[in-house]
Amino acid sequence: MTLILALDFGGTKLAAATVKAGGKEWLDHESRFSPTNGDALTDLEIMRSLIDSVLKGRKPDTIGVSFGGPVDATTGLVRLSHHVPGWENVPLKQILEEDYHAPASIDNDANVAAVGEHRFGAGQGYDSLFYITISTGVGGGWILDGKPWRGALGMAGEIGHMVVDPRGPLCLCGKRGCVERLASGPYMAQNAREMLEKEPPSTNGKIRGDVLRYLTGNDLNLLTGKVVSTAAANGDEIAQEVLYRGAWALGVGIGNVANLMNPQRFVLGGGVTKAGDNFWTVVRKVARETALPEVNFEVVRALLGDDAPLWGAVALGLNVLD
Amino acid sequence: MTLILALDFGGTKLAAATVKAGGKEWLDHESRFSPTNGDALTDLEIMRSLIDSVLKGRKPDTIGVSFGGPVDATTGLVRLSHHVPGWENVPLKQILEEDYHAPASIDNDANVAAVGEHRFGAGQGYDSLFYITISTGVGGGWILDGKPWRGALGMAGEIGHMVVDPRGPLCLCGKRGCVERLASGPYMAQNAREMLEKEPPSTNGKIRGDVLRYLTGNDLNLLTGKVVSTAAANGDEIAQEVLYRGAWALGVGIGNVANLMNPQRFVLGGGVTKAGDNFWTVVRKVARETALPEVNFEVVRALLGDDAPLWGAVALGLNVLD
Repeated sequence: MTLILALDFGGTKLAAATVKAGGKEWLDHESRFSPTNGDALTDLEIMRSLIDSVLKGRKPDTIGVSFGGPVDATTGLVRLSHHVPGWENVPLKQILEEDYHAPASIDNDANVAAVGEHRFGAGQGYDSLFYITISTGVGGGWILDGKPWRGALGMAGEIGHMVVDPRGPLCLCGKRGCVERLASGPYMAQNAREMLEKEPPSTNGKIRGDVLRYLTGNDLNLLTGKVVSTAAANGDEIAQEVLYRGAWALGVGIGNVANLMNPQRFVLGGGVTKAGDNFWTVVRKVARETALPEVNFEVVRALLGDDAPLWGAVALGLNVLD
Repeated sequence: MTLILALDFGGTKLAAATVKAGGKEWLDHESRFSPTNGDALTDLEIMRSLIDSVLKGRKPDTIGVSFGGPVDATTGLVRLSHHVPGWENVPLKQILEEDYHAPASIDNDANVAAVGEHRFGAGQGYDSLFYITISTGVGGGWILDGKPWRGALGMAGEIGHMVVDPRGPLCLCGKRGCVERLASGPYMAQNAREMLEKEPPSTNGKIRGDVLRYLTGNDLNLLTGKVVSTAAANGDEIAQEVLYRGAWALGVGIGNVANLMNPQRFVLGGGVTKAGDNFWTVVRKVARETALPEVNFEVVRALLGDDAPLWGAVALGLNVLD
């Protein structure tokens, strides 16, 4: 029996699981939140205890790792974590291989999700695809010719910072109107808040902002991407405008990518994709309008759900053995 | 001796040449303009006579073909020519292989130029690069992992229709502010013409449009991309604004592509790239600002010049033998 150890260093959550090659269910699965004041060492310590409790003394045949930050997939060196300090230049692949005596393969979470969707999810049978996660950030991972494409220096996939509206709002990255600035959950919440601050409570029967105010109990600091999409589904016009703008940005980005790389499929995951059918309709319509008529593609939902990083890690581990 | 037959179906020009494998000089080289009322059959007839005169009775070992229009590189089927009627679904690879008894490899001109620059030009030693031609149109060709990436349906590389300014001018493709609409020669000429039509001849000493008017003898129908860049180099402010906008669009496109695919190099060819140092400075600066700080790349000039399609065809022919 080939035993796969799958690990997810998720930034806020750490998880470990084991599965047999070909298995559809976890043998064992453990997860824990990262401590708020932790660092790379405490993350590693917690992960070791999770690993011990899923391995139960067995030796894994291969280890796959999803990491929430830039990684050199060739050497298995973590460059940094955007959430947890101390991860700069940690040789994670080497540490795991020495500790658990099995080959390890490690990549950033978007690439791992792409590999996972390709092997187990919405990308099965599609050897050229682009996976996009739309969540607290917007990122992407490539499968080309059936294999991950990571770029010359492992930086490929950054659709989040593709500029789609150079006169749009300013992003933390220093540019205006990039996809992440318009479509990520926190930025959509910020856009809604800024519009609400300019909008007096309505007295003329129009539902502009009323649902957003109701859902947050008038505390606009409680706005999230999820609140925006709930309010949009309940008819709030400000929420609908913000969500439309996010879907539009994502659609332009997808259409541009289709023209440039001509993949078969776009697979979309992450919390924002739960925003409902209107969101998907706009994304698909704008993507179709942006791409040239002869460039064909599909835009579909990711299938692996909350365990996507772990199933992606399983796929990564299996790829090492292939 | 391995004899390579290189062919260029260029839309306005047809060319054939022979070279020995490893050779840097043509053995024989012939070219002729396409007749203005010609079609695929007349093109093929002219090309056959060019081939006869360069082959001189010898049999080629391999044939490489650059075609100015979409091609299915796998089957060698021409989809259509944007310039010459009658090319719809012509099995050009099959025709050439039957006529000349050698394996033929055929691709569209941008992909062929990418292959040529990779093997003989500015892309030597760079296994991930994006070639961009900025000329009467804007197109591109990919080399990834040392091989052409053509996309799932052979449509990859269309940076020309990446939207960089959704509030920009309307393109023939139906979208606003795509790279080609702002940076191609004919569209830059159109942009200059429209600005000139709103601008009275200057009386206050500012050089807005005066050089453009002088160079065209006041006949704005004679404006071309080349006239715009000459006028810009001679201080015409309208020409400079138009050229800046083109360089800006190209820079945003390149930066977006860098974020998405992280290639090592961008290789730029085509008439517009002769516009001078200011043009290149703006392209490089805007590309650098658009890409994330950790995404590194170079933007360099294509090296193969006017014979680029033929040298690319040589590289394509050699790839068949590799």
